[in-house]
Amino acid sequence: MIADLRGKDALSKDALSNLTGRIVESYHDLDTIEHLDQTSLPNFQVVTAIVTDLKDIIFPGYHRFRNLHWTNARDHVGELLKGLYERLREQIACALRYEGSGRGIAAAAGWNGDDADQRAREKALAFLQYLPELRVIIATDVEAAFEGDPAAHGHDEIIFCYPGLEAITIYRLAHCLHSLRVPLIPRMMTEWAHSRTGIDVHPGARIGPGFFIDHGTGVVIGETCVIADHVTLYQGVTLGAISFDHDAEGNLIRGTKRHPTIEREVVIYANATVLGGQTVIGAQSVIGAGVSVTKSVPPNTIVTVEKPSLRFREAPATRSA
Amino acid sequence: MIADLRGKDALSKDALSNLTGRIVESYHDLDTIEHLDQTSLPNFQVVTAIVTDLKDIIFPGYHRFRNLHWTNARDHVGELLKGLYERLREQIACALRYEGSGRGIAAAAGWNGDDADQRAREKALAFLQYLPELRVIIATDVEAAFEGDPAAHGHDEIIFCYPGLEAITIYRLAHCLHSLRVPLIPRMMTEWAHSRTGIDVHPGARIGPGFFIDHGTGVVIGETCVIADHVTLYQGVTLGAISFDHDAEGNLIRGTKRHPTIEREVVIYANATVLGGQTVIGAQSVIGAGVSVTKSVPPNTIVTVEKPSLRFREAPATRSA
Amino acid sequence: MIADLRGKDALSKDALSNLTGRIVESYHDLDTIEHLDQTSLPNFQVVTAIVTDLKDIIFPGYHRFRNLHWTNARDHVGELLKGLYERLREQIACALRYEGSGRGIAAAAGWNGDDADQRAREKALAFLQYLPELRVIIATDVEAAFEGDPAAHGHDEIIFCYPGLEAITIYRLAHCLHSLRVPLIPRMMTEWAHSRTGIDVHPGARIGPGFFIDHGTGVVIGETCVIADHVTLYQGVTLGAISFDHDAEGNLIRGTKRHPTIEREVVIYANATVLGGQTVIGAQSVIGAGVSVTKSVPPNTIVTVEKPSLRFREAPATRSA
Repeated sequence: MIADLRGKDALSKDALSNLTGRIVESYHDLDTIEHLDQTSLPNFQVVTAIVTDLKDIIFPGYHRFRNLHWTNARDHVGELLKGLYERLREQIACALRYEGSGRGIAAAAGWNGDDADQRAREKALAFLQYLPELRVIIATDVEAAFEGDPAAHGHDEIIFCYPGLEAITIYRLAHCLHSLRVPLIPRMMTEWAHSRTGIDVHPGARIGPGFFIDHGTGVVIGETCVIADHVTLYQGVTLGAISFDHDAEGNLIRGTKRHPTIEREVVIYANATVLGGQTVIGAQSVIGAGVSVTKSVPPNTIVTVEKPSLRFREAPATRSA
Repeated sequence: MIADLRGKDALSKDALSNLTGRIVESYHDLDTIEHLDQTSLPNFQVVTAIVTDLKDIIFPGYHRFRNLHWTNARDHVGELLKGLYERLREQIACALRYEGSGRGIAAAAGWNGDDADQRAREKALAFLQYLPELRVIIATDVEAAFEGDPAAHGHDEIIFCYPGLEAITIYRLAHCLHSLRVPLIPRMMTEWAHSRTGIDVHPGARIGPGFFIDHGTGVVIGETCVIADHVTLYQGVTLGAISFDHDAEGNLIRGTKRHPTIEREVVIYANATVLGGQTVIGAQSVIGAGVSVTKSVPPNTIVTVEKPSLRFREAPATRSA
Repeated sequence: MIADLRGKDALSKDALSNLTGRIVESYHDLDTIEHLDQTSLPNFQVVTAIVTDLKDIIFPGYHRFRNLHWTNARDHVGELLKGLYERLREQIACALRYEGSGRGIAAAAGWNGDDADQRAREKALAFLQYLPELRVIIATDVEAAFEGDPAAHGHDEIIFCYPGLEAITIYRLAHCLHSLRVPLIPRMMTEWAHSRTGIDVHPGARIGPGFFIDHGTGVVIGETCVIADHVTLYQGVTLGAISFDHDAEGNLIRGTKRHPTIEREVVIYANATVLGGQTVIGAQSVIGAGVSVTKSVPPNTIVTVEKPSLRFREAPATRSA
């Protein structure tokens, strides 16, 4: 019996050793999905810790540090900023070296990543300088949520509990880094928000103040969207692309405006989709729940789906059980 | 070179110190999004730990404590309850003091939070007393899932793996606390469930037994919904509000019935939206996938969208590559 | 005062002790939702750790182990495989013993779980042997994402950041285990992916290479779906069931084909639903955003919703502010 088990163990040992060889061989054959002998990518855990600290600076006293007072706020913020700067410049340098190593598309421009550390320092500092300004914009988002949701009991509940505000806050941070041409990290930030809230806002989108996303699960806002002031979206709304252009060789053309423009004070209800780079939703229009729009809509328009059809059952189903 | 780096370090040090001052100043200017010198808010980590322990009591032996037997169950439950009571009364006291401090809307009623500890003790105990009753209702939800999903192999798989059951269980716990007028904590619980399951059920909604949400991502159930027995919802269904009333000064009126009533044995398919406080979906009706309803529907009715239009392509696209 | 508090403490102590008794009693009465004195279920934490290690083998150098080189890759993979084999056979044995204990439906077939350890060893080894083959298929999924999304800057960004690829990778792993008739664990894996990505793919679905899900929140792919090569889905798409058959006693019939068949190179846009086991979407067809399909669609067809209706407001609402 023991011999038999030993035999099985030896068998599985051989099989695993043999399998190891086959897997490593497959790394040679399939080099599109391996990252061996490459410059390090930024680290997800560090990036999410950075976002958590940034949120503590933007909304002081709400989250982890609950004994924050006017007397200790200055020390606290100073401490957080020091740590943020160090980790930011390290992670940005990582992302820039990756970009410069030739795997990222922008690297094709000819930069080899030489002065990544110096550039990272500058970008980290430039980013942090935006924080006071960002607080002003994010306060308009909080206000918009309070004005837009009768279920909200106060600003604190919104800051404390609303996933829409979490997604918008992280988007605004990521958009700043994206504007400073930091690669990869902005996407890591918004994908973290996406995973936690179900709201997927591309860091490249341009979004005005007073933006409110209620509930939010399933919302998608594409890379080249332009959204004006005081727009409201509900859960499941897609602001997306409708078709893609290819070049003469059949390759996808990247970087053109593929996503819609939403003018000020538009409201888009649950599960509606607005598609296309030429599509403009005019100011103060309302897009009804479940509507699918692929053409522009003039200002002050209410767009709704056709009435659904009703049919009565002759013999209503009764529950089995 | 070293001098140069030191110069850079000094530069960034000055910049960060200056920035710290600007950020703390912005806390004065933007006092809608700071929480300094305030009573502590409840703690998210503690609240989620409470929910995890409550789930262990409701579904014994499924999750963390897998060697649970009839012989040790009593000791185990006793131990859990003791810890739950202590943490609940502490967190509820926190929420009540917050409410009494004047930032919460209910505080406007005049209570100053004086006897928060005593009230918290009573509410914590009253809540825990509901647990046996809650188990009876939640067992009907498990049964409804088994009856409603041909992919389910048994009750255990539903309890172990179904996000719909997780969201409903946490909603039922949160609704109990909400009925006991505990502020903030019920929302923290359901937002935790929302983040994990994509299902957003407001603790204020009233939902009968035998409730089944299949898959569930994107489901939104608003604060003033009333849902009767044995209702089934699929992913992406919104039971929401359609418009809000404002008072003479233009402020949002809060607390009116804004969300629909769903009668017994109704089934609502994926991505349908039912909106409006006056909207009633009659018993045993079926709302088809993608339908948008803003008016009442009589009992025993099947509601579907207009047939989509089909168009044939003359030259079918062939994949490039 | 102290006496008073002691009195309260004694009161709550009695109440909790009494409550403990009532809860344990309810375990006797409601035996559909307890798991006492039963064989252990597999462990969620261990299963998610297994998935994380499997992803490290499939995409070497991207995630946790960032200093991976050609020189140390073999040792690294060997080490991972050894740990994976041990944990897999332990968890699979757990799942098989559960199945054999009579709570799982398949157990009805008469197996009592006796040789669970031996079967688990074989299944764990057979599963790991698939890994090189799986890498080939998953590489086609990465390529499909790059071809399908103009916002993607390269393969690395897709592997590093795209939730659609994460969900598909975990589905492909879970589908392998499902094909080897491992109970429970495949569902635990895909529900973990569902929780992180909002994408719910049943391990029983059959999906060809080059599969791309963009954004993905709210996607549901049912147990008996068949999806051919190079299909693209956007967020909120449901491939679901439309009605269920019951046997003469009114019990749900499980195991029949209830979900649609999607032929090659089909694209299905956001929030569309395709329902029914007889429904076939023909090759190269396009299903528009928000469309609801319950009948088959021929190849090369573009399906869109009726145009929405536009209504102009006479007195445009102005924001109260």
